[in-house]
Amino acid sequence: MPCPPSTHPHTHAHNNQPSQLTPHHPLLHIYSRVKQGFGWAIAKCLAEAGAEISLGVWVPALNIFETSFRRGKFDASRKLSNGGMLDFAHIYPMDAVFDTPEDVPEDIASNKRYAGNEGYTVSECAAKVAKDWGKIDVVVHSLANGPEVTKPLLETSRKGYLAAMSASSYSFVSMMQRFGPLMNPGGSAISLTYLAADKVIPGYGGGMSSAKAALESDTRVLAYEAGRKHQVRVNTISAGPLGSRAAKAIGFIDDMIRYSYENAPVQKELAALEVGQVAAFLSSPLASAVTGHTMYVDNGLNVMGLAGDSKTLLEREG
Amino acid sequence: MPCPPSTHPHTHAHNNQPSQLTPHHPLLHIYSRVKQGFGWAIAKCLAEAGAEISLGVWVPALNIFETSFRRGKFDASRKLSNGGMLDFAHIYPMDAVFDTPEDVPEDIASNKRYAGNEGYTVSECAAKVAKDWGKIDVVVHSLANGPEVTKPLLETSRKGYLAAMSASSYSFVSMMQRFGPLMNPGGSAISLTYLAADKVIPGYGGGMSSAKAALESDTRVLAYEAGRKHQVRVNTISAGPLGSRAAKAIGFIDDMIRYSYENAPVQKELAALEVGQVAAFLSSPLASAVTGHTMYVDNGLNVMGLAGDSKTLLEREG
Amino acid sequence: MPCPPSTHPHTHAHNNQPSQLTPHHPLLHIYSRVKQGFGWAIAKCLAEAGAEISLGVWVPALNIFETSFRRGKFDASRKLSNGGMLDFAHIYPMDAVFDTPEDVPEDIASNKRYAGNEGYTVSECAAKVAKDWGKIDVVVHSLANGPEVTKPLLETSRKGYLAAMSASSYSFVSMMQRFGPLMNPGGSAISLTYLAADKVIPGYGGGMSSAKAALESDTRVLAYEAGRKHQVRVNTISAGPLGSRAAKAIGFIDDMIRYSYENAPVQKELAALEVGQVAAFLSSPLASAVTGHTMYVDNGLNVMGLAGDSKTLLEREG
Amino acid sequence: MPCPPSTHPHTHAHNNQPSQLTPHHPLLHIYSRVKQGFGWAIAKCLAEAGAEISLGVWVPALNIFETSFRRGKFDASRKLSNGGMLDFAHIYPMDAVFDTPEDVPEDIASNKRYAGNEGYTVSECAAKVAKDWGKIDVVVHSLANGPEVTKPLLETSRKGYLAAMSASSYSFVSMMQRFGPLMNPGGSAISLTYLAADKVIPGYGGGMSSAKAALESDTRVLAYEAGRKHQVRVNTISAGPLGSRAAKAIGFIDDMIRYSYENAPVQKELAALEVGQVAAFLSSPLASAVTGHTMYVDNGLNVMGLAGDSKTLLEREG
Repeated sequence: MPCPPSTHPHTHAHNNQPSQLTPHHPLLHIYSRVKQGFGWAIAKCLAEAGAEISLGVWVPALNIFETSFRRGKFDASRKLSNGGMLDFAHIYPMDAVFDTPEDVPEDIASNKRYAGNEGYTVSECAAKVAKDWGKIDVVVHSLANGPEVTKPLLETSRKGYLAAMSASSYSFVSMMQRFGPLMNPGGSAISLTYLAADKVIPGYGGGMSSAKAALESDTRVLAYEAGRKHQVRVNTISAGPLGSRAAKAIGFIDDMIRYSYENAPVQKELAALEVGQVAAFLSSPLASAVTGHTMYVDNGLNVMGLAGDSKTLLEREG
Repeated sequence: MPCPPSTHPHTHAHNNQPSQLTPHHPLLHIYSRVKQGFGWAIAKCLAEAGAEISLGVWVPALNIFETSFRRGKFDASRKLSNGGMLDFAHIYPMDAVFDTPEDVPEDIASNKRYAGNEGYTVSECAAKVAKDWGKIDVVVHSLANGPEVTKPLLETSRKGYLAAMSASSYSFVSMMQRFGPLMNPGGSAISLTYLAADKVIPGYGGGMSSAKAALESDTRVLAYEAGRKHQVRVNTISAGPLGSRAAKAIGFIDDMIRYSYENAPVQKELAALEVGQVAAFLSSPLASAVTGHTMYVDNGLNVMGLAGDSKTLLEREG
Repeated sequence: MPCPPSTHPHTHAHNNQPSQLTPHHPLLHIYSRVKQGFGWAIAKCLAEAGAEISLGVWVPALNIFETSFRRGKFDASRKLSNGGMLDFAHIYPMDAVFDTPEDVPEDIASNKRYAGNEGYTVSECAAKVAKDWGKIDVVVHSLANGPEVTKPLLETSRKGYLAAMSASSYSFVSMMQRFGPLMNPGGSAISLTYLAADKVIPGYGGGMSSAKAALESDTRVLAYEAGRKHQVRVNTISAGPLGSRAAKAIGFIDDMIRYSYENAPVQKELAALEVGQVAAFLSSPLASAVTGHTMYVDNGLNVMGLAGDSKTLLEREG
Repeated sequence: MPCPPSTHPHTHAHNNQPSQLTPHHPLLHIYSRVKQGFGWAIAKCLAEAGAEISLGVWVPALNIFETSFRRGKFDASRKLSNGGMLDFAHIYPMDAVFDTPEDVPEDIASNKRYAGNEGYTVSECAAKVAKDWGKIDVVVHSLANGPEVTKPLLETSRKGYLAAMSASSYSFVSMMQRFGPLMNPGGSAISLTYLAADKVIPGYGGGMSSAKAALESDTRVLAYEAGRKHQVRVNTISAGPLGSRAAKAIGFIDDMIRYSYENAPVQKELAALEVGQVAAFLSSPLASAVTGHTMYVDNGLNVMGLAGDSKTLLEREG
């Protein structure tokens, strides 16, 4: 059994194999937030599909990640449905807001949380992958950062806005620039976006909505440019709210989970593996005609034009 | 090997199993145009995923379909990648423009192409399925008809427009009304749409663009209504141009294929199996959080805002 | 003063003249529901812009309309901001579900509510306009009918669905077919749509969401076809909820008004004149580069991805 | 005569007054590229509607702008349709990539093109406006800069991408932060965007497509946030290609003009005044229910899903 069955009552996910990537094609999986989130679930689903996976981990988080990994703290969540354990071919230090060594400012380079690591810019990381693997099939961009995410856009500083753009949208462009040439024809890149790009979601601030809008637009442009240049596909998944640690940092996640449960067409909590399964599918040759697409994996919340549980609607019933 | 690998160079589709539907859940697959098109490919991909498949075949085409089937004329295209042959648990006569026996006009009932068949309205067909199978997991709507498809909308008659709506969009509503109650929770329904719903595609006339727009909208509404009532999901696939017999009837299909090849991000012809693979995925529990979605399977053509091969652009280069 | 100022506090609409249509170009304004609704407001705004206006009134409503008009029952709502009174050059009986005399079934032709009227099909009405006016500048489609609008789509009959299509979307195609050749180059046609075409609005049923989706799609196709053939523009206005008589027939309008007030970016009730003003603008040469567009006039409700007054969100505050 | 009639044959724009803004409400009009472009046309249409207009001009361009203005070089293009001349209440030096004096780097502050100017950051400019005018009704954001616009996204540097974001999208957020509190309730803000935000337009690179996508998303978010906070409306105009100096800098503008002429529903060149007219309308109380909207003013090109003049389509005819 690959991706463990979701726990909600009406799916039967046993015995599914989303995509068996040919084992001699190593796969790169890049993200920075490593546990419990969508990235971790994507890694598991790709692993179950037969992929070898390498990670890029955000430098300041790398030490504790590796320590926790070694000490078995992730073991429970590493279990695959086929009985194996999620493992990584390589774990690279990575900071996707820097493209080349020249971009790293002195205060970062000398920061003790970065000390002892080297080669963590996107171009250096790509060079390591080229050396270690030669070619790769899949690139996953599962990273975002908006330092002012809790502020309304009207209170977001230029610095915070551009930081959100740099970490959350340009980082994907940078990765496609450096990893694109390493990708086999037919390969696939995916990223993660959110409904706030297209519709107003108060509470998702700091320019993160702007960055996701740019990311969705860039997905289309890169689908064309990298499609023509490298014969690869580029898609993005618009995921619903998930109770992961990263998401909780935004502060409004519990609200969003309850909101989605009440108002979405399918009434259940979203499981990270449901996003992992779609990512694995989009990354596989089975999706060979799908590119430039924003795919919603959100129990259908995005199609609603009305919140059935609005106070104004409840009044009538009362 | 399930879905045979597509023939374009950069996919490696061997050894993939998109979704193994539990074998004790029979599956209904309904369409009217039976050979070489998207519906046939969807049937194959679902069969390879372990589904038992029943067909609803348009009554006037049923006789020749069954004869051809018996005589082996479809054998080449029935071959599955696992060595087996596509087979059908039941083949039902069906005409999705009639809901109940009372709806069948006398000239149809007595038409010799309908003679000898009975129970072909949607409600009767559903009753047969309920008797033969009890419950089903998947409903596929792969049928469309626009008698005036070659006419511009400005020249389309009311009769032709409403006929396109009745056969191409309401037929799906009708099926969800009658088959929805037979579906297991977690089940999935899909239909096929086309970009002309959202953007102007001269040549796709007769109200077919209108019907596809209604179908995409209905997909969202049914995702909500049937989601809440039956705990099922409803999606639609917006497929690119395919050189099938049905599509060729429109007359402009060869143009569209060349156009897509020149202008889409991924430069290859669309294979029917590429749509089949996505349909099988959306029909599987792996897509348990995807509903109400219009999924483009068109080599990315829909994301383009410019045709690079426009005469006006070529002039510059010349 | 043309269109009287809206009553909400933050607009200052006095002394505005949205578009002065040249007076020698008569204008046709077609609708069926005649008082207080969007159509009436559009007529007033066009009249204030200098247009001569003719009406097509739904046959069964014509008698009471003309009687009420003569007896002064509309006088209060006929007052224009320039001191004049809304008047009509011609009032034609019209039933936009019939294209030619041959389409009128016997039970309608002999119905007492139709008795005494003739020439009310779309083609006959166009012939009268051609005879009375020669050329026209503007066509307004402000009519919709969905006999099963209160039923969910899952309970809507084929007859009800197709009736909604015939009256609410094909009627516009039919009008463009017959009135298009009468339009001066540079002329404009508009219709009215609703958000339910694009997002799920439970309560707006009977296939009316499907019909509006078709109408929006047809707006694009007709913009192209009639744009090329007659050099006219075609747009549609997606209006927010209005407490008009027609809208109230749907039954859920009061809910929608409260919902919009709570959740839209601009917190005020929508005035019919706000739609009239936009319609007059789109109908004027000032919008000469705008065509195929769905323009939202809804206090911005359509951009929201979250209802701030959802019960789930209020819980947190409590 | 206000906005001079467009030159294409089928519009009759004489004697139109899009919106007479009350004269005691001064109006701020901000842009950086000053002649012949959309911004200039918007200024003229607002002036004809009775607005007093102040300009913010990009500092390095200010000197030549003022000199040219004084010497009468703009006189021909300053002529209003009512016989008057476009004039400005104030002309402020402005650089919308800096929010406060602290943001101006030393090399800019000491640059000879900035020497002699002061107070050109957004916050200082707003302070001047507050002192000179108190309250304003309208804010127009007509500025964009993408230093690498000619490069594909796959070749765009992080610096170039973020510069495009800073100048072209965050600048609008910054303006709304500082000018929003100066706006009267019922006021309006608009910006200019381009189809490349939503669909792939090869040739519009350097992250400018990303910036426009962010701008469109921000328009929705600001419509909500500033709508609730200041009771103002926020919209954006997606304009078609124009042969202005600014646009020509992109290099592909002539292609786009020819392309649009061949393929759009309305076959004519876009006039800058057509965008000005829509901007004046959206800025007026007549559009009091329109907010968060992306309005296309492009002869309808955005609705096309097919380029009729594609080489692949022409082959058939040949």
